[in-house]
Amino acid sequence: MKNIKKVAIVGVGLMGGSLAMAIRRRLPKVKVWGYARNPHSLRRIKKAKAVHKVDTDLENVVHDADVVVIGLPVGMILGYLKKIKPFLKRGALVFDLGSSKGTVVHGAARILPKSVHFVGCHPLCGSEKSGVEFSRSDLYRGTLCLITASNRDKAAWRVKKIWQAVGSKVIFMSPERHDVLLSCISHLPHFISFSLTQLVPRQYLYFVPASLKDLTRISNSPAQLWADIAFANKKNIIKDIQKFIRILSKYGTLLRKGDKKKIAALLARANAKQKYIA
Amino acid sequence: MKNIKKVAIVGVGLMGGSLAMAIRRRLPKVKVWGYARNPHSLRRIKKAKAVHKVDTDLENVVHDADVVVIGLPVGMILGYLKKIKPFLKRGALVFDLGSSKGTVVHGAARILPKSVHFVGCHPLCGSEKSGVEFSRSDLYRGTLCLITASNRDKAAWRVKKIWQAVGSKVIFMSPERHDVLLSCISHLPHFISFSLTQLVPRQYLYFVPASLKDLTRISNSPAQLWADIAFANKKNIIKDIQKFIRILSKYGTLLRKGDKKKIAALLARANAKQKYIA
Repeated sequence: MKNIKKVAIVGVGLMGGSLAMAIRRRLPKVKVWGYARNPHSLRRIKKAKAVHKVDTDLENVVHDADVVVIGLPVGMILGYLKKIKPFLKRGALVFDLGSSKGTVVHGAARILPKSVHFVGCHPLCGSEKSGVEFSRSDLYRGTLCLITASNRDKAAWRVKKIWQAVGSKVIFMSPERHDVLLSCISHLPHFISFSLTQLVPRQYLYFVPASLKDLTRISNSPAQLWADIAFANKKNIIKDIQKFIRILSKYGTLLRKGDKKKIAALLARANAKQKYIA
Repeated sequence: MKNIKKVAIVGVGLMGGSLAMAIRRRLPKVKVWGYARNPHSLRRIKKAKAVHKVDTDLENVVHDADVVVIGLPVGMILGYLKKIKPFLKRGALVFDLGSSKGTVVHGAARILPKSVHFVGCHPLCGSEKSGVEFSRSDLYRGTLCLITASNRDKAAWRVKKIWQAVGSKVIFMSPERHDVLLSCISHLPHFISFSLTQLVPRQYLYFVPASLKDLTRISNSPAQLWADIAFANKKNIIKDIQKFIRILSKYGTLLRKGDKKKIAALLARANAKQKYIA
């Protein structure tokens, strides 16, 4: 940690901005720079006081950085790796915060030279909110961060130290296992939530009970971001959609058959499992 | 309201108990009696101080009551209407709190004599919690109560006054329209939540993010109650399951086709609608 003097954040939104704030708080000797794509976002980032210095010149921000954090949506990560490639210093650590990892990690290996170290990261504290305005230095405290590398990888180990410094617990797993896991616990649930919101007719919105509000809340998540996530983890999501449909349609079949006992038994099993979620 | 001297609550759980408390608070001249099925529930109801008097003798509770509230799960309502029928006083108002209405309202019309008035009610403030311990006098304040009768029905009008007294806003609709509405905004969402909990493997439960917690919360709802609700509103739920599957599987098809633009457009439409839910 001693040899980290400058951290560059490319993509200072909720996640990147919060990481910047947390690093400034926990590692006060580190200088944190942020990249702003245009004067408008430059003003927003300045106002949020997320970083020490913000600049619209990508080279200025990335140049000399010991650590570069890509806080961009999944669909933009590889494009920005290509952009920053010429400015990266030898031995720099680069990591992202994206929600699907296979395409990102393998893409990064293709794009970046061997002289820099890319580590895929996914802190599990996403939110349907977005924007640097919502950043807070304690966003990562007590959360899990998945690092898609072997725990014997030196660069991954250094990145782990950063996450631990901001209060996250780190778990190592392969990008493939990460994507299977996330499809199930996050990507599929988002598409279920989006679909449910689509299904409810507008004239029913007045009656929506608290339970349905909870189920449709994340259908507020940014459309383009989620279209990108879906395509970056397409294979697993298609499978999970099919699995889910099989389970749900079973209820339709049992209702048609009149098998109330079997329905009650399935629901009771869900009851038992739900206790471990809460 | 002046001619209500005694209210009997048959089924003093979360909903019935809360209504008892609210009536005692808002209509202090009314005497509220509760029925307990056995000595164990008698102790629980006494401890919760929900009613003035609690008794395991159904006749004692119902006899002479001007209003009888059936606070039982949907699957038990008709059975209890048969039981209380011999004890009901001429002109008594009887209403339930069940989540599906067609089978209950038509069943009640078959079971009860013309000399008493049955009104189907569904206060939209259910919870995955159950039990008289969770009762509170303000449960109904600011909520909606659906009454499945014509607003020209005199008995329904008297029941409306009671709901208004405890802070509910009343909306009249036919039992058929109620069941179509509830299938969409409550019953289908519950079966989606149950199915999602079933799908998540146990070894993933450690990773469950806040978003999935919200989506699976109501899969904690009582299995037998929900098996009964499902069968009482079978036709609509089967249709809505099919509708939902069509919407969700569309995402699978578009992912396979590679149509990211169409996916982003569908998600954006859900985003726009979600704003009216929140």
